[in-house]
Amino acid sequence: MSGSGETDPTPVSELGEDALVARIARRIGPPPAGQMWTGDDAAVFPAPGPTLVSTTDLVVEGVDFDLAYCTGADVGWKLVASNVSDAAAMGAAPAEAIATLMLPPSTPVGFVDDFLDGLLGAATTWGMSLVGGDLSSGPVIAASLALLATPFDRPLLRSGARAGDAICATGSLGGAAGGLLALRAGAVDRHAIESEIAAPTGADGLAVLAVRQLRPSARLQEARALSAFPVTAAIDVSDGLAIDLHRLLRASGAGCRVDAASVPVDPELRFLRDTLPDAPDPLDLALAGGEDFELLVTMGPDVVEDAQVALDETGTGLTAIGEVAAGPARIGDEPLQRWSEVGWDHLRTP
Amino acid sequence: MSGSGETDPTPVSELGEDALVARIARRIGPPPAGQMWTGDDAAVFPAPGPTLVSTTDLVVEGVDFDLAYCTGADVGWKLVASNVSDAAAMGAAPAEAIATLMLPPSTPVGFVDDFLDGLLGAATTWGMSLVGGDLSSGPVIAASLALLATPFDRPLLRSGARAGDAICATGSLGGAAGGLLALRAGAVDRHAIESEIAAPTGADGLAVLAVRQLRPSARLQEARALSAFPVTAAIDVSDGLAIDLHRLLRASGAGCRVDAASVPVDPELRFLRDTLPDAPDPLDLALAGGEDFELLVTMGPDVVEDAQVALDETGTGLTAIGEVAAGPARIGDEPLQRWSEVGWDHLRTP
Repeated sequence: MSGSGETDPTPVSELGEDALVARIARRIGPPPAGQMWTGDDAAVFPAPGPTLVSTTDLVVEGVDFDLAYCTGADVGWKLVASNVSDAAAMGAAPAEAIATLMLPPSTPVGFVDDFLDGLLGAATTWGMSLVGGDLSSGPVIAASLALLATPFDRPLLRSGARAGDAICATGSLGGAAGGLLALRAGAVDRHAIESEIAAPTGADGLAVLAVRQLRPSARLQEARALSAFPVTAAIDVSDGLAIDLHRLLRASGAGCRVDAASVPVDPELRFLRDTLPDAPDPLDLALAGGEDFELLVTMGPDVVEDAQVALDETGTGLTAIGEVAAGPARIGDEPLQRWSEVGWDHLRTP
Repeated sequence: MSGSGETDPTPVSELGEDALVARIARRIGPPPAGQMWTGDDAAVFPAPGPTLVSTTDLVVEGVDFDLAYCTGADVGWKLVASNVSDAAAMGAAPAEAIATLMLPPSTPVGFVDDFLDGLLGAATTWGMSLVGGDLSSGPVIAASLALLATPFDRPLLRSGARAGDAICATGSLGGAAGGLLALRAGAVDRHAIESEIAAPTGADGLAVLAVRQLRPSARLQEARALSAFPVTAAIDVSDGLAIDLHRLLRASGAGCRVDAASVPVDPELRFLRDTLPDAPDPLDLALAGGEDFELLVTMGPDVVEDAQVALDETGTGLTAIGEVAAGPARIGDEPLQRWSEVGWDHLRTP
């Protein structure tokens, strides 16, 4: 399924590996002088900095995405966004990446074209270069990206949060999970999604939520701005606020007190129950839904106001949602664990 | 199936993603001071050199390996070997790598343990560090590795071969393809394979061939030695001598004359037809079989003898098999294309 509806239906098996690799290499284009991207045993490029940050994400059809409601371009875009988000959570700027792609032999060549559209569009957005990759066949579509990045300042780790630090989240939470519910229910028109992608107007609340799910942003500018402040710990919200906060606190050896009322719930979630009366409460989606790719950071409480001013210049809010504490981890009156246990587990959810 | 027979049968779905990641992180062990490997949003380490070489390989159950005749340790070892071989073909030393692993929820935890045994054993052999990765579930097992390397001297590209250059191959060819035939026919005892892996004696010719297929070597020392010579082009033999030579010549814009009688056919192939009377001729396996991970290099004919002396110190032969020519590419009286067309195509072979 594609927004444009104009994709090449030829199966990749008919094209063959060498011809598909050549087609992908043409799309990637030539490297800067002195570099080698595709066409040899490996890519060659200058190290983007003296310190490297390296991350990878693997997405699998039927597990991480479903072609019933997403296009190849959505898959390619989100693969880049999730990796760039990991780099952003380390306070690092993306540089070079290599991809793998597993394709059933019957996959239309148009899927690969669409996938590259999304991947290369996101790569341009965040200043990343796709320099190579590998193909294999398989029973479903799967794709991975391995990204090299280099810190803006110093790497932001999960482990530096100390009792008394403020816990802050960028942007808003729960929108991607709400979008997934709307997409699974077939409640969003693809044309509305394409319009919202092409020219965001926010006119259709469900389409906005669907775009949060299918074409997430990565908080790279925000990470660059935050790197100028004495941030003590950082993580991106990929599996849900509660579970990712739990991971940050576990790495830091600390607890927390989070004020549920201050959690920045995605405003578009107010429309969800109009269409899906059984949808969870927006706050529940904000706490336990994943894939928002917002940043969760800790810093001394005296720094928060200046950081908020700096973030304002990127157009993204920074909300203080609670504080790191020596005691147990709590959201309101509840243990954080109650929420983190409902987060996403790749191996348990088949 | 495992050589030791002592693997944990617990399904990975019972363990869950976080616990499996923690188990893998324990196996990987702590990084050197100042580095971060597992346990954060990304790995952090110093750039291994000012110029980076980056390659990736994806292997899929039922396409690239079959658990009917290989263990998790075989899969992990070969994944590293194939990536290190790509680095070697670029004249580069492996440094850091990240992995992805797709697992059906029913996969025994013991498979992952075995896979790591093989992967980390090969990593130690070739001086590579596994610094992180990502897991997802899926309908079959698939694994990828993205490897960073840095040149010994300058990167060796495919594109520099010039008419008159000698074409040389390291080691011997066809053994891995012969091993695959023997394994598929069920003609090799696993205990003989394990003995040959643990202490190579060469006593069982079919076991030697099986080890070439399951636990290939990568010609890293050889690449280091060759980097000291004015090698004009290099590629590794991953898909077959003919197809990989074709790729090198295409990148160089040249043809060749190869003397079939001089191709270093794996001596162990002489045993293959004793057991498998219908097996192809050893020379055919040497020309069209893949996965030998030997190096194919070109250099001025005056350099060959010195390079052979240097390679001797690594214990690996270097055989001149023909010369780069301005005309068409030929092996004996036949066009090279006749052989390269029977090479491996990931998308056409389901």
